[in-house]
Amino acid sequence: MPQNRLFYNHFVLPEAQRDSLNVVLVSPRNPLNIGAAARAMANFGFSRLSVVAPFDPTWREARSAIGAPVLLQNAKSTECLAEAVASCTLVVGTGTQTYRKPEQRIVPLPELTPLVSQELARGGRVALVFGPEKHGLTREDLSYCHLLVEIPTHPLQPSMNLGQAVAVCLYELTRCAESPPPTPVASVTSTAASGRLDLLAGVIEEAMQAVGYSPRAMQPANRHDLRLLLRRLSLTTRDTRRILGLFRRILWRINHSGH
Amino acid sequence: MPQNRLFYNHFVLPEAQRDSLNVVLVSPRNPLNIGAAARAMANFGFSRLSVVAPFDPTWREARSAIGAPVLLQNAKSTECLAEAVASCTLVVGTGTQTYRKPEQRIVPLPELTPLVSQELARGGRVALVFGPEKHGLTREDLSYCHLLVEIPTHPLQPSMNLGQAVAVCLYELTRCAESPPPTPVASVTSTAASGRLDLLAGVIEEAMQAVGYSPRAMQPANRHDLRLLLRRLSLTTRDTRRILGLFRRILWRINHSGH
Repeated sequence: MPQNRLFYNHFVLPEAQRDSLNVVLVSPRNPLNIGAAARAMANFGFSRLSVVAPFDPTWREARSAIGAPVLLQNAKSTECLAEAVASCTLVVGTGTQTYRKPEQRIVPLPELTPLVSQELARGGRVALVFGPEKHGLTREDLSYCHLLVEIPTHPLQPSMNLGQAVAVCLYELTRCAESPPPTPVASVTSTAASGRLDLLAGVIEEAMQAVGYSPRAMQPANRHDLRLLLRRLSLTTRDTRRILGLFRRILWRINHSGH
Repeated sequence: MPQNRLFYNHFVLPEAQRDSLNVVLVSPRNPLNIGAAARAMANFGFSRLSVVAPFDPTWREARSAIGAPVLLQNAKSTECLAEAVASCTLVVGTGTQTYRKPEQRIVPLPELTPLVSQELARGGRVALVFGPEKHGLTREDLSYCHLLVEIPTHPLQPSMNLGQAVAVCLYELTRCAESPPPTPVASVTSTAASGRLDLLAGVIEEAMQAVGYSPRAMQPANRHDLRLLLRRLSLTTRDTRRILGLFRRILWRINHSGH
């Protein structure tokens, strides 16, 4: 297609930074939606797609579709959301007006860009997570998110088509050519990646059980709360390492206490 | 879907004005795209759809699809674009980087809203015109437009899916609500007072010593770091109480471990 005019040959997010943004689709059911998400990504200059627990025929069909773009062929498929976002320092859950009891900060989509570009500018990796077509992200999925973004849809018809939701979010992230990305504020501080937080959560949970912190029936609720807490605290890699060290030491001490 | 939080109960374009905006699809070939356009319209609170010279089976299929929204059933079908936009005072042609020899003013999508809302505010009627999937609006189509709007897509993959293009344009027209109220999470949260943090620091330090976390010589440095860390984390009163509970339980367990 001939192009002789380019208004936007620079984006809010420089090319290299857009490479550090992952689009993550959780359990998509419709191959057309996976294809549509991939197309929107290409339209707005993003290339990293992960699909969590895809319905197998759907996934194969989407990948092998005629004209399936390279980014779909390069897309990663993971068993669970934790794995898909393990390397990410900012995990953003998306939705419309469906959060019943928000447990994290909620940001309206028109205000998302500065948060994302700041994280990317300081070398972080961002995941933008989209739920399944029918019901969106579950409470469990949301517990892996540092913040939630809300697409401002109309109250009478809030639920968006998956491919359209991806397009709207990525458009928002690249629409504004004016403001350059903010200067890296906390460039020294490296935020702990999601996978490190999960490792830490596992060790803390082990310690909780070892000391009988709460009844067994409370363990799933505690695990959920702990995951949310660790994300809310914006721990650095160094914090995470030190807290991990302390809890491992605690566990060692308890396991060697002679009874 | 239950909704108990509405950030955007006011839009840039008041309800009555949105009724004066027509979405016009010129010769769409794929019934799914007509349905997708209708859904995006409902998502962003628009209701007037016209379809120009639809391919007949496509049009019947889209209209009779299960769950086809009222706005699709009420959509108008016209023979030609001139007829569809006859009552409109501002006709906006949409596209990506495809205008070879623009004959009108071209506005980047992020700058469209003031022009549209101004026209609607003074009682005008606006048409937002989308071309067929394959090639977009023809030169003939464009000649009915007062201005052209360009969706800022990436040069390597400029061409958007029709339903996604409609979603992105309507999102742009409604995205900007001035300042949404702060998220409930942040406002409810009460930050832990300094004294509580010191209490917590004391108990954590006691646990560190009890498990032999570090040599005695390191204890002042650890205490200092711990104090800084607890402040940096913005712990709430509730976080503090729970972490305190866990460390007290750890200490109790160690002190009753029989040696």
